[in-house]
Amino acid sequence: MTRELRIGAAQLGPIGKDEPRAVVVERLIALLRQGADAGCELVAFPELALTTFFPRWYTQDVAGHDHYFEKAMPGPDTQPLFDEAARLGVGFSLGYAELTEPDACGDQHRYNATVLVERDGSVVGKFRKVHIPGHEADEPSRPFQHLERRYFEESPDGFPVWRCFGGIVGLATCNDRRWPETYREMGLQGVELILIGYNTPIHYAPDPSQNELQGFHNHLTMQAGAYQNGTWVVGVAKGGTEEGVESLAESCIIAPSGQIVAQAVTTGDELITATADLDWCKQYKETLFDFARYRRPDVYQRITSQKGVIEP
Amino acid sequence: MTRELRIGAAQLGPIGKDEPRAVVVERLIALLRQGADAGCELVAFPELALTTFFPRWYTQDVAGHDHYFEKAMPGPDTQPLFDEAARLGVGFSLGYAELTEPDACGDQHRYNATVLVERDGSVVGKFRKVHIPGHEADEPSRPFQHLERRYFEESPDGFPVWRCFGGIVGLATCNDRRWPETYREMGLQGVELILIGYNTPIHYAPDPSQNELQGFHNHLTMQAGAYQNGTWVVGVAKGGTEEGVESLAESCIIAPSGQIVAQAVTTGDELITATADLDWCKQYKETLFDFARYRRPDVYQRITSQKGVIEP
Repeated sequence: MTRELRIGAAQLGPIGKDEPRAVVVERLIALLRQGADAGCELVAFPELALTTFFPRWYTQDVAGHDHYFEKAMPGPDTQPLFDEAARLGVGFSLGYAELTEPDACGDQHRYNATVLVERDGSVVGKFRKVHIPGHEADEPSRPFQHLERRYFEESPDGFPVWRCFGGIVGLATCNDRRWPETYREMGLQGVELILIGYNTPIHYAPDPSQNELQGFHNHLTMQAGAYQNGTWVVGVAKGGTEEGVESLAESCIIAPSGQIVAQAVTTGDELITATADLDWCKQYKETLFDFARYRRPDVYQRITSQKGVIEP
Repeated sequence: MTRELRIGAAQLGPIGKDEPRAVVVERLIALLRQGADAGCELVAFPELALTTFFPRWYTQDVAGHDHYFEKAMPGPDTQPLFDEAARLGVGFSLGYAELTEPDACGDQHRYNATVLVERDGSVVGKFRKVHIPGHEADEPSRPFQHLERRYFEESPDGFPVWRCFGGIVGLATCNDRRWPETYREMGLQGVELILIGYNTPIHYAPDPSQNELQGFHNHLTMQAGAYQNGTWVVGVAKGGTEEGVESLAESCIIAPSGQIVAQAVTTGDELITATADLDWCKQYKETLFDFARYRRPDVYQRITSQKGVIEP
């Protein structure tokens, strides 16, 4: 057991609608320093960790929330976080709203993105959310809206992984964690650690019977994804009550066995840590889940050949 | 809420090496009658429910265990179960070892099969296990062997589902339940109820650290599969200590929410029941897991284009 990586999940409490980026970044830096003090080499921050969860408000013009988006990463407000990471020697992942430069046709694209940063402050790679939940159109009858499908495009890039931090690391965002394809795509690339940020309102308007199960479903899907692919998973929340909306906290660090080895106990800014033995992954990847020996892609064809349900 | 189906999981305790089929079938009939008394319309029996778990013993000739296989279903020993099902009006699923008729080349095939039978005793369909675990070669140093890959071929048929019992029903067997592709293949066909029989030794020779997690992993994978596809799942064990080998019991019935609604409390012959509202599935299939709206097969291509891991 030699490849041990000390990791942290930096849960955030609410971010107010008018809270300046610079103040939020100070909160992130404080958590990063806690991580350094705890010996962490890598700290995961949540989805959309720089602003309030703005997709809960409708604007007629899709560009109406562009002030919540980043045009560069690092940018002026986030450079201090990168600088402090390099100074401390602690890498991080950070979720943010990405507004791209105009393309050849002059179009800009909006993604729910996460950047992965090495211990020297250099960018390892960027992930854009694949499974965009919620709705596109104004639904003012909801107590609050979930307009992610209005403000974010689906990533065309899928689930890349990177060799870094002494292992193979991948990213996913919020709703991605509910889909087994997320973990499997990375599992097929040998992933050993997946960092997942989320903002999950407790209230689910289309079926409120799911409200009280939010915590259960959150852990269930990440624990199954970890076990079924023999990988560490970090789930990190923006929790608490933000602009009147209660969101799930319960950030956790999950071993390749599927066991939760650390879990947040508050709904606010809180760092949890664990020492992740990346070699533990082999105990699953080389036995029960030896994909090359046991998988059956010849009979999985519906998974890629069709999108929706086709009943018999 | 109108499509309610009363279902049972008929867990079995051990079956001895020398226990005659006819005696086992009497045990099955006793459980089927309990199911009828409890108002069940469908009772699920375990994997290889007619014999001891013979793949734990090596024979040099693969045909050496052929006396544990069925050449017809129903056959002489199982006809009384079919007759009693028709008399009671209770359908069932039953796991057994299938030996096919010689094909055009004179070859016979061996499958780990499950038959699904309607309330009138007619055969709805047959499933053959897709994910065959264990090993092919003699490994006498193990405390007991798991030679499924010696005695069973992998099914070429995948995961069919059938319209029956007022809904859409599918089957899977033991190790199939650990693979998310199992549930997804059926989920993409609108499955509402999956019946899964299993024989799961507590001791896992390749990595004994998994022994104490057998119960956790059993429920974790079936609960995740149920939730992620909005389907009922029945997991039914042959449990207890059979020929010196301790196997997991913990049979359970799982709702489309992922919640366990019934669970066995013994390791022997035991019937558990639940009333499955098949319309509950819609609360997941038509909201969070509206596949046609939210899935992204364009970025799932590794799942079918490669079998084993390809690291970056």
